Amino acid sequence: MQHVNTNIRLTLPVVCFVWQIAMIILFGVFIRYDEESDTHWVETKAHDNITSDIENDFYFRYPSFQDVHVMIFVGFGFLMTFLKRYSFGAVGFNFLIASFGLQWALLMQGWFHSLDPQTGKIFIGVESLINADFCVAGCLIAYGAVLGKVSPVQLLVMTLFGVTLFAVEEYIILNLLHARDAGGSMVIHTFGGYYGLTISWVLYRPNLHQSKRMQGSVYHSDIFAMIGTLFLWMFWPSFNSAITDHGDGQHRAVINTYLCLASTVLTTVAISSLSQKTGKLDMVHIQNSTLAGGVALGTAAEFMISPYGALIVGFFCGIISTMGYIFISPFLEKTLKIQDTCGIHNLHAMPGVIGGIVGAITAAAASESVYGKQGLINTFDFTGDFKDRTVLTQGGYQAAGMCVSIVFGVVGGAIVGSILKLPIWGDPADENCFDDEVYWEVSEPTFHTSMKIKPKSPIISSQLPDEEEEHQESIPPILEYNNHMIHKQQDL
Amino acid sequence: MQHVNTNIRLTLPVVCFVWQIAMIILFGVFIRYDEESDTHWVETKAHDNITSDIENDFYFRYPSFQDVHVMIFVGFGFLMTFLKRYSFGAVGFNFLIASFGLQWALLMQGWFHSLDPQTGKIFIGVESLINADFCVAGCLIAYGAVLGKVSPVQLLVMTLFGVTLFAVEEYIILNLLHARDAGGSMVIHTFGGYYGLTISWVLYRPNLHQSKRMQGSVYHSDIFAMIGTLFLWMFWPSFNSAITDHGDGQHRAVINTYLCLASTVLTTVAISSLSQKTGKLDMVHIQNSTLAGGVALGTAAEFMISPYGALIVGFFCGIISTMGYIFISPFLEKTLKIQDTCGIHNLHAMPGVIGGIVGAITAAAASESVYGKQGLINTFDFTGDFKDRTVLTQGGYQAAGMCVSIVFGVVGGAIVGSILKLPIWGDPADENCFDDEVYWEVSEPTFHTSMKIKPKSPIISSQLPDEEEEHQESIPPILEYNNHMIHKQQDL
Amino acid sequence: MQHVNTNIRLTLPVVCFVWQIAMIILFGVFIRYDEESDTHWVETKAHDNITSDIENDFYFRYPSFQDVHVMIFVGFGFLMTFLKRYSFGAVGFNFLIASFGLQWALLMQGWFHSLDPQTGKIFIGVESLINADFCVAGCLIAYGAVLGKVSPVQLLVMTLFGVTLFAVEEYIILNLLHARDAGGSMVIHTFGGYYGLTISWVLYRPNLHQSKRMQGSVYHSDIFAMIGTLFLWMFWPSFNSAITDHGDGQHRAVINTYLCLASTVLTTVAISSLSQKTGKLDMVHIQNSTLAGGVALGTAAEFMISPYGALIVGFFCGIISTMGYIFISPFLEKTLKIQDTCGIHNLHAMPGVIGGIVGAITAAAASESVYGKQGLINTFDFTGDFKDRTVLTQGGYQAAGMCVSIVFGVVGGAIVGSILKLPIWGDPADENCFDDEVYWEVSEPTFHTSMKIKPKSPIISSQLPDEEEEHQESIPPILEYNNHMIHKQQDL
Repeated sequence: MQHVNTNIRLTLPVVCFVWQIAMIILFGVFIRYDEESDTHWVETKAHDNITSDIENDFYFRYPSFQDVHVMIFVGFGFLMTFLKRYSFGAVGFNFLIASFGLQWALLMQGWFHSLDPQTGKIFIGVESLINADFCVAGCLIAYGAVLGKVSPVQLLVMTLFGVTLFAVEEYIILNLLHARDAGGSMVIHTFGGYYGLTISWVLYRPNLHQSKRMQGSVYHSDIFAMIGTLFLWMFWPSFNSAITDHGDGQHRAVINTYLCLASTVLTTVAISSLSQKTGKLDMVHIQNSTLAGGVALGTAAEFMISPYGALIVGFFCGIISTMGYIFISPFLEKTLKIQDTCGIHNLHAMPGVIGGIVGAITAAAASESVYGKQGLINTFDFTGDFKDRTVLTQGGYQAAGMCVSIVFGVVGGAIVGSILKLPIWGDPADENCFDDEVYWEVSEPTFHTSMKIKPKSPIISSQLPDEEEEHQESIPPILEYNNHMIHKQQDL
Repeated sequence: MQHVNTNIRLTLPVVCFVWQIAMIILFGVFIRYDEESDTHWVETKAHDNITSDIENDFYFRYPSFQDVHVMIFVGFGFLMTFLKRYSFGAVGFNFLIASFGLQWALLMQGWFHSLDPQTGKIFIGVESLINADFCVAGCLIAYGAVLGKVSPVQLLVMTLFGVTLFAVEEYIILNLLHARDAGGSMVIHTFGGYYGLTISWVLYRPNLHQSKRMQGSVYHSDIFAMIGTLFLWMFWPSFNSAITDHGDGQHRAVINTYLCLASTVLTTVAISSLSQKTGKLDMVHIQNSTLAGGVALGTAAEFMISPYGALIVGFFCGIISTMGYIFISPFLEKTLKIQDTCGIHNLHAMPGVIGGIVGAITAAAASESVYGKQGLINTFDFTGDFKDRTVLTQGGYQAAGMCVSIVFGVVGGAIVGSILKLPIWGDPADENCFDDEVYWEVSEPTFHTSMKIKPKSPIISSQLPDEEEEHQESIPPILEYNNHMIHKQQDL
Repeated sequence: MQHVNTNIRLTLPVVCFVWQIAMIILFGVFIRYDEESDTHWVETKAHDNITSDIENDFYFRYPSFQDVHVMIFVGFGFLMTFLKRYSFGAVGFNFLIASFGLQWALLMQGWFHSLDPQTGKIFIGVESLINADFCVAGCLIAYGAVLGKVSPVQLLVMTLFGVTLFAVEEYIILNLLHARDAGGSMVIHTFGGYYGLTISWVLYRPNLHQSKRMQGSVYHSDIFAMIGTLFLWMFWPSFNSAITDHGDGQHRAVINTYLCLASTVLTTVAISSLSQKTGKLDMVHIQNSTLAGGVALGTAAEFMISPYGALIVGFFCGIISTMGYIFISPFLEKTLKIQDTCGIHNLHAMPGVIGGIVGAITAAAASESVYGKQGLINTFDFTGDFKDRTVLTQGGYQAAGMCVSIVFGVVGGAIVGSILKLPIWGDPADENCFDDEVYWEVSEPTFHTSMKIKPKSPIISSQLPDEEEEHQESIPPILEYNNHMIHKQQDL
């Protein structure tokens, strides 16, 4: 057995403490409530002639925010619990890095997007919280590629750099290029996907097959994963509409995403069934590919893509994503040496790119006859410096944004991957990958009635601890267990 | 062993692809954004003198919509995971048929309720999405009766016809009879219940006892089912209020449903405890009968039934539903030959009928002194053609609506059941019912510590694949199974 | 074996029926819809010059209410499923006592807070439902201390008195002392914590070690518990903001809680890792201590504590709560004889006290320069009788409120504990604690593949029931088990 030090008792607490203290200091210097969450709101209302508290942005966005929040913590967390023995790591590390990432995202996004030049402060409200959650989503996607193969310290480092890169590419794409990307096909999914894939490529483990026994799922872990799938699927309309324009913008993004995802489910099932000799379905496809439509509509959700357009996008995404799991993932692993635990290439990277392309095309095809004059201006925000931009130009900038997100993902992932390759982070040995025991105090695997059997003679009981070694090879504990069960039931 | 062909590799993909393409074409022809989700909303606002985007119907209904959405996919899906080995089918097929059903529902309900005569188009908004989810609920209820006994292709056929029938009966009940049924006691639950029960009656399997070993629950599957129960229970107030009138209508429906459900829990527990010798509780009752109050208040939730009235409805529904599980289900199976896997008769059909009756009585008993003059008009929509209708007449039409939903359920179920009896759908043999292995690639049942025992001598390990027969007695079967898995994975 | 009567077939149904009937009668006498949920809302709107239905309080609070509702039933319920074999009791009894408690809370809180002197009626709306859920939360916290050691009848009694005490201490703290406590650090968490701990102290079981084998978790039960943790964690911003002021009040409470909780996660992980030799994490800490920040910000969430202030509170709460699990819980059990199953001392009682202190300090430190003149009045409700109160005085009353909640918890818990000590409630024997079998019909512990092995010769199959001992080595024991099951089912 390869000797690897997975002791993180020094590094993990130090990183957590130091970074959290840094957050407190930076928040003290930079972060303040915005005018809608400050007690001076009563004056703002009077000043801006706002008649009702219901006009506070909180009431436009809070329900969507909570849905997004559930996607980040339950959705991403449980989606990754499919491995038979890495559910603690899936849910727990997801929880950890998201909690750190959202704080750092508020700062990074604040500095790039909303630093008030006069006061030098960042003013936050509910929309900032949504954006922070979005930023974290990019890093959680990347986590999917390296799931089970890295230490929590590496994940925290990956998140630190991931959020930083995210804020910069987002600034370039949304502010400089003025591309639209409300649901983040490019900014979140393409970036996050390629960031994770590249890191996984750098961290390639040629002997990963040594932990093959831990790589599958068990029956219950597949059901746990469906909790993640369903909460992601159901709340994706909120994801894609959370920061779109008030009124028709949010309304339309919801309808489009709802329809697109429904369509994806049917084609995912169709391809999954086709892929097996007797037409059986594969849980991996149902858990993941059903979500590809939501990813691919991230950019265009707020556009007038029309209901049938949304269905078409979903139709092809279900096919492509499922075929990705069947054909592309094995190819990536064998040929390109990319070990992608959760198949994020098929769920995020590829559908993200499709989403960017769909966004560019639908933007370029937008017309005043469909959108209305003011509708076109509102949807693409053709105001200020961009008031003379045409839809064709917009389409070009959308495509450019797409490229920026890929470049940031690949180049950023390569750099961060190199950092993570340093032998100081406590990552697991090849044969201990996908095993919670490395980083968690793990409880018994399952409940046995035999636990309740009171041995008739104390001798047997006292012998048990001493004779463990011998009987492990001959009698499986579970078999004994069942014998006892039967006796017990007969007693009933 | 009876030989049955459960290969769905041809039929399932064909049905999914053809139907999804049909959806795309029909959506292209018929479905458009309504004025609140279209970019022309800015013009609508100016035209209608709407001062704020918050007046968009989206903000009145979206939180409720998302709750209903969770009920459809997590609620119904997980409620049916109680079987020890049919959780993939429960959650997965629920996911599939709901995703198809909601698209078809948007079309069917659109044609019947909101086809614009001038343009020939159906304009959809958030309320349409809620109604589509409602329509799907009817079919998912029916799924509960045949859970584990049909193929996914049969479920899709059942959903196609179910949605079609639903839209027609809904049109008759709500539009022609002008009955009120905001939470669908009649339209959703009574129809869905009898539709499913009649199909199950037509598909009666005299030898179903051959799969008795698969019909129970295991400890964990009962907990998974509680996820479904609780999300249904918690969000039922949203279900019953999602499409009621803005303002007091939604507010009152929530209060009534919240109270009614609380009351149901106590009487369910009481009867469940009474039914066992030592007062132990039965999970089947807790999982299902606690929800009966929500069903039974579907019609009357928006009425002035008063808080104590809601408690009374819940009180009796808990009793009746639980006694249904104890006494009526065995009777239905033995005498009427209705095999009702989830007991939808006790959870939906019977409480739905109660709900229809409660609705008729409370409508007939409504008075201007309680409702106020305008309140009465608003609540029962006594406008247009119905402006002279009295509450007594309304009560009669409510009762008539009740009958319509039963007739549609029974007659529709008989016809659809006959179609599903054709031997072309790939349904499972009697001894393979309630078993995910028929339609799913199934992972190992559970994780065993024994998997992690590293044999001291490499010989044992290397012998494993070759000596399968011999070592069955000494080595737990799960070990071999894993060896196969590893081979399979290496082959990929 | 100590002989104990756990038969609750008489007491449980009687308590459920009698209490539910009492609720119906009392609701009939006292509870009515308030003006926003009554059909006369249309007149109220005209009278109060309200232009839009969106001004109905329903739209300000319903999304938060549903989040709180999820916390109560899924959050608290699943958080307690961590025990290997008490998940039915955790989720099921939580469901039962919350359903009873919320009805009783509407009455008790109504009598104390909103009894209309003219009509003698209590008028309820969505805010009443939230307050009822809050009140129930106090009792569910107390349940955590006695989890697995009491009967459902005892829990109902505990809830009856708990809600009663809650309503009184809440009246004293919020109305008489006019302390602010929107998220209930004092009113809910401190009271509930000490109420449960004191009851547990009175019910001390010196021989509880006899059921030690049932006290741990299994792998899957820890994942179920994470469902509870995450829904509590994600929706805590809704909890702390649900009844704060419209507009900036709700907005700010959300931001503060969101940040505070994120900070708590990092320090919890740090301390948990430090507590183990190799830095492994402990699921108990992750499941519980990550929530302490939400508790501790219950009072101050609506204040201008500022974003970095929220982070600081979370920082220390994560540390203190995790250290509580490591050091204080064992001390409480050994020295003070308090057996605290879920560690509510570390999650609720101690962070609640911290929250009360933080609230008192931040209130005392409030200034017009930070809050604005009107902002200060709005935040602390310095109106009517309290219009001349200074922030320093307010700080003093906050601290006084803190003490009231502790006194009510301890004294109330001592009295109620004495009542629960009577030998009439059917509580389990020491060696049967933490075991669902006492109060539930329990299904098989887990599913085994071996069930599916079809014997090659039909002879073996027919011999099964007769030859149990012999074929145990060749035929998986579970087959026999199933035969028994079938017999049992046939007997029914």
